[in-house]
Amino acid sequence: MEKKYLFSPGPTMLPPEVQLKMAEPIMHHREPEFEKIFAEIRDGLKYLFQTKNEVLVFTSSGTGAMEGAVSNILSKGDKALVIRGGKFGERWGEICQAYGIEFIPIDVEWGRAVDPKLVQKALESDPSIRAVYTQASETSTGVRHPIREIAEITKKYEDKVFVVDAITGIGVFNIPMDEWGIDVLVSGSQKALMLPPGLSFVALSEKAWRLVDQSNLPKYYFDFKKELKSTKKNQSSFTPAISLFVGLRETLHMIRKEGLEELFRRHEKLARATREAVKALGLELYAPDSPSNAVTAVKIPEGIDGERLKGLFFERFGITVAGGQDRAKGKIIRIAHLGYYEKLDMVMVISALEMLLKEIGHRFELGSGVRRLEEVFMEG
Amino acid sequence: MEKKYLFSPGPTMLPPEVQLKMAEPIMHHREPEFEKIFAEIRDGLKYLFQTKNEVLVFTSSGTGAMEGAVSNILSKGDKALVIRGGKFGERWGEICQAYGIEFIPIDVEWGRAVDPKLVQKALESDPSIRAVYTQASETSTGVRHPIREIAEITKKYEDKVFVVDAITGIGVFNIPMDEWGIDVLVSGSQKALMLPPGLSFVALSEKAWRLVDQSNLPKYYFDFKKELKSTKKNQSSFTPAISLFVGLRETLHMIRKEGLEELFRRHEKLARATREAVKALGLELYAPDSPSNAVTAVKIPEGIDGERLKGLFFERFGITVAGGQDRAKGKIIRIAHLGYYEKLDMVMVISALEMLLKEIGHRFELGSGVRRLEEVFMEG
Repeated sequence: MEKKYLFSPGPTMLPPEVQLKMAEPIMHHREPEFEKIFAEIRDGLKYLFQTKNEVLVFTSSGTGAMEGAVSNILSKGDKALVIRGGKFGERWGEICQAYGIEFIPIDVEWGRAVDPKLVQKALESDPSIRAVYTQASETSTGVRHPIREIAEITKKYEDKVFVVDAITGIGVFNIPMDEWGIDVLVSGSQKALMLPPGLSFVALSEKAWRLVDQSNLPKYYFDFKKELKSTKKNQSSFTPAISLFVGLRETLHMIRKEGLEELFRRHEKLARATREAVKALGLELYAPDSPSNAVTAVKIPEGIDGERLKGLFFERFGITVAGGQDRAKGKIIRIAHLGYYEKLDMVMVISALEMLLKEIGHRFELGSGVRRLEEVFMEG
Repeated sequence: MEKKYLFSPGPTMLPPEVQLKMAEPIMHHREPEFEKIFAEIRDGLKYLFQTKNEVLVFTSSGTGAMEGAVSNILSKGDKALVIRGGKFGERWGEICQAYGIEFIPIDVEWGRAVDPKLVQKALESDPSIRAVYTQASETSTGVRHPIREIAEITKKYEDKVFVVDAITGIGVFNIPMDEWGIDVLVSGSQKALMLPPGLSFVALSEKAWRLVDQSNLPKYYFDFKKELKSTKKNQSSFTPAISLFVGLRETLHMIRKEGLEELFRRHEKLARATREAVKALGLELYAPDSPSNAVTAVKIPEGIDGERLKGLFFERFGITVAGGQDRAKGKIIRIAHLGYYEKLDMVMVISALEMLLKEIGHRFELGSGVRRLEEVFMEG
């Protein structure tokens, strides 16, 4: 028998009832029935993003909405400040480069969170910076960046916006967009939203919409103004990924039913227990100081090849965990716990990790990881 | 009981076995199993596009690949020739405009095919034209444009390319890319490929790839060079719509099994029978001279509101047909027959049309449309 389990930070496991819903015969996207679904989705996304503004939905990978958050926000000659502490931070820089936007990087050691003071300093020393780009949760390193603190800084400037890729942040921990003063918030479907990949999301503050009005960079498919107009009519500008929309309505209902508070509490508990369990096995966290509750990045002990460990997870137990990317390749594995995950899922993956570490020759007390998990779970 | 039927030119009906396949637990896109699927898809798409070149797959609506066919092919200062004979022809112009590309329109009366001589004349009179943009099948009017004839003209120029949106052409009628000398060929998933919307496709000739090398327009998500590199490794540059890829493998197998010749023959038969049936009811075709085998556009008789007729199709029979768009709104209905359609599907929709026309007061002999369908089908 081959049972398979996803513990990668996207795609994540899907609720079976949602899978079946998406397998229903397809409907047409200009029918009243679809427009009703669309209206429910708009409501559900506003709840999830904690904003009164519209959340736009694009049929694309999350990167599509990220690109739109450059091409719709900036104009020729604008400068960007890019926080680069991992592969996705680098992506902001790459997108700026593609559009001929000069950017100032704040390079952060992988595994560390950015110091907000560096943002403050950069904004003070270069008044021509128009936007600050970062991740809420840097998926490649498992780091959570201090979004609230950076928003405190950027919101003092009338002419500067704060753009946050929260692809693995939204629905995992609290990022109240309006309350904190975040200007652009991006997410994707295959993370905490418990769907297959194929949809990206973006919400904008009024300050950001004013920049969109002025923006003169080219865009067509990811044209925010055009999409906003369609959204208000419960439509997409271009044929949407209909089956994913149908699934999205379901998962947004699930999220609403659980409630944001409980949603964040559950993720915090799973993440904390996972970190504690990993440490109980004598392993170190890659992001010890500011870990994201979306994914736990674990340093591979000296002498063990991380890519081999990752391969064994799949071979022995049918489990997909993520390895390290780029400079972290072979050095870490990443265990995700965002979306459709509960306590016993983490018991499975930590138990598998124990058996594999034993097989590889790492020295620790068998069962000590799962025991630590149980202790944390039982704290109530 | 509420049974529903799609006769819209995208989304089209899905094979139930493919729906179920796509509802299976999701796999990770960096697993060997997915790479195997990817490799099969590459093969299947080359077969379908009749090309030895790679066919790139993007997670987006078809418009995404259209945008890429401007932003990757052209450079600042290039001029485009755009054939505008419907809503999708206009889209090429809009995309050029978004990228600051000057374009010369050839405006064709809606319902008519372009005269290739006009293309010839335009290319002769303006040597700075770099690319010709058209549709193979203009979905908004039901017209088929003379692709082979235009390719004959463009392929004489070393420095000019021919870009064809075949979103409702591929898999419907013969468009042998390499043989005819088409340089860029675009398609989408929710048409003859029998899938939900969410994937777009594009293949490029060597001549087109040379332009891509020079192109200096901004692009990131729809970056053809980057995607080609990933494709050759059986990967997507960004997280792909995994469940749609899984479905795509299935529908490409179905297409291969049917064979292109039979596929085109089936579509031709369904389309011709539909046109004949509609005429037997005393109605006129909107595109009488060069109809596409993807969709039949039918003129609504004087005194009948097309939007009302479309509404009645859904109300009385659960059938979605398309209405007219923009200037054709209320004046036509469009009945699609591309993808997962067979003879008896057309019997249903023509029978429904007969009953509705009778209800509305159009004068004709009840049953004469279906009779004509049967006659054409029985010709062998």
